[in-house]
Amino acid sequence: MLYLPLQEVRDCLLRVLLSRGCPQNHAETVAFEMARNSLEGVYTHGVNRFSRLIRNIDEGIVRMGVEPVPVHTFGAIASMDGQMGLGVVNAKIAMAHALSLAKTHGMGMVALRNTNHWMRAATYGYQACEVGMAAICFTNTIPNMPAWGALDARLGNNPLVLAIPSPSGDVVLDMAASQFSYGALEKARMEGRQMSVDAGYDANGDLTRDPDAVLQTQRILPMGYWKGAGLSILLDLFAGCFSLGNTTLGISRLSGEEHGLSQVFIALDYRKIAPEAQSDAILRETLAYVQGSTVAPRASEVRWPGSRLAETRERNLQNGIPVDERVWASILALQK
Amino acid sequence: MLYLPLQEVRDCLLRVLLSRGCPQNHAETVAFEMARNSLEGVYTHGVNRFSRLIRNIDEGIVRMGVEPVPVHTFGAIASMDGQMGLGVVNAKIAMAHALSLAKTHGMGMVALRNTNHWMRAATYGYQACEVGMAAICFTNTIPNMPAWGALDARLGNNPLVLAIPSPSGDVVLDMAASQFSYGALEKARMEGRQMSVDAGYDANGDLTRDPDAVLQTQRILPMGYWKGAGLSILLDLFAGCFSLGNTTLGISRLSGEEHGLSQVFIALDYRKIAPEAQSDAILRETLAYVQGSTVAPRASEVRWPGSRLAETRERNLQNGIPVDERVWASILALQK
Repeated sequence: MLYLPLQEVRDCLLRVLLSRGCPQNHAETVAFEMARNSLEGVYTHGVNRFSRLIRNIDEGIVRMGVEPVPVHTFGAIASMDGQMGLGVVNAKIAMAHALSLAKTHGMGMVALRNTNHWMRAATYGYQACEVGMAAICFTNTIPNMPAWGALDARLGNNPLVLAIPSPSGDVVLDMAASQFSYGALEKARMEGRQMSVDAGYDANGDLTRDPDAVLQTQRILPMGYWKGAGLSILLDLFAGCFSLGNTTLGISRLSGEEHGLSQVFIALDYRKIAPEAQSDAILRETLAYVQGSTVAPRASEVRWPGSRLAETRERNLQNGIPVDERVWASILALQK
Repeated sequence: MLYLPLQEVRDCLLRVLLSRGCPQNHAETVAFEMARNSLEGVYTHGVNRFSRLIRNIDEGIVRMGVEPVPVHTFGAIASMDGQMGLGVVNAKIAMAHALSLAKTHGMGMVALRNTNHWMRAATYGYQACEVGMAAICFTNTIPNMPAWGALDARLGNNPLVLAIPSPSGDVVLDMAASQFSYGALEKARMEGRQMSVDAGYDANGDLTRDPDAVLQTQRILPMGYWKGAGLSILLDLFAGCFSLGNTTLGISRLSGEEHGLSQVFIALDYRKIAPEAQSDAILRETLAYVQGSTVAPRASEVRWPGSRLAETRERNLQNGIPVDERVWASILALQK
């Protein structure tokens, strides 16, 4: 394992993107966010996914130099077409537009179609928190999870983000509709570990914690069984119907790659109706109450969304970002 | 088991409410919705919960003759104070206000504080669908679920609703943040059944499907383990911070009953940016795709939110609403 300084990682990703004809401002956004994801421990959507992004650029699936264009607008809501551009750039621009609508109307929504993988869902929640707003965001994806009672995958594990700013560290929930991501299953298989709870079905149709068995059947378990399946359907219908873009069905008709996605960004300028001093006091005492829970006998700690982020970030800033040698070598090889 | 015609159930609930000094229009709303809940198979939040509501009215916890009053408004967002009135009436009025804001601005949000149990969460999703809008609604509740890794219950199993209208039957997800409700556990214990999947922890700290063991420890399992716990925290922070009302912490300081709640109603008039013909076509083909999934070998059917509703409703309209004799006797005894 290599331990690389944040700046070195960022600079390298930036150079590779620029070598593909990516405009400077877009390249900076993507390099910044993907390096930050690894810095904050979300390795699957950071450096580890960078080579795949470049492959998608080289294949023409992700287009360079385009930005979302407005389609329809009515008051606080708008739809935009992402023109199959860089997912991170598109999503940041769509969220910025939702934030700007919220500044005027108290809340705003942008439904974005024809976009690509936004990497880490939480990114757009933090973007809202930075300007003191709350957010609800979600994306759809390729069919990778069965409906409840189904054998074949016709749902996406569509991630949902809920975010609210907090002076002691923003509270950002970033939750896929499956119990585990395919990335987490692959990591556990490589390390020869079982998952901590049931992750999906084996070839006999039994629930199992064995990542290899689930990767073979591709029957990953929805979070909360039927509940995650239901959540996935609603998020997909919202994203597709609001943006008039692809639902998971439409995405499945494309290349088989994760592109042509639809996403929704809702920004809530709630401090316009809930003065900061009062709402922050409620937030602070509520978080302190939860964090003061008695730790269960067999648990090591009480967890809440973001509870481990500051520690990981600090450690990786100090010691460098852990990057697999082969992953780094393949990224270095992309600089040409 | 009795099988009672819808009209008889409604009329009886109405009479009892009127006998408590409930205004005619409020009594009609509550009687209509609670009878409908039983009609559509949501027995726990229909007739079965009616005596408890009347007890709360008699105790003065639920106040008669009040309606939500506006607190703060900015553009498309507003907060209201429910004055500890009837939860169903308050929630319907708050949702109606969110729908009216959405008509003007494309979307609207009402954050409601000092309200009471809204019974069935889906009610307010259907309310939006009736006027062609989508909705996101949630409520908080008393502490009844531990945080992830915690022994003591400091979270609520706060239900979340996502709803979108559909000509073939609105698609409404109504999902508590726990894997099962306490009502479902109590029903299974009465019937001597185990739950279909793990429902919580037993006295040894082991996950169990035994409803009795979970009811004894009161350690119910969050949906998706850490995920449902995280979702609960965010919904509670949103509801409390937006309305400047109680979070689960504040509710815990009250009587121990489920009152003084905070709720959020978001209405989305998405057809203003996504013409009905186009968005409905996307919805129809996406639902048909999911419903066309191959049924897994050991499953009896593929399920999605609302997939069983029409059948239950039809059966109960035909045969009458099933009501336990003792439950009905206790409601009849309330007519005085």
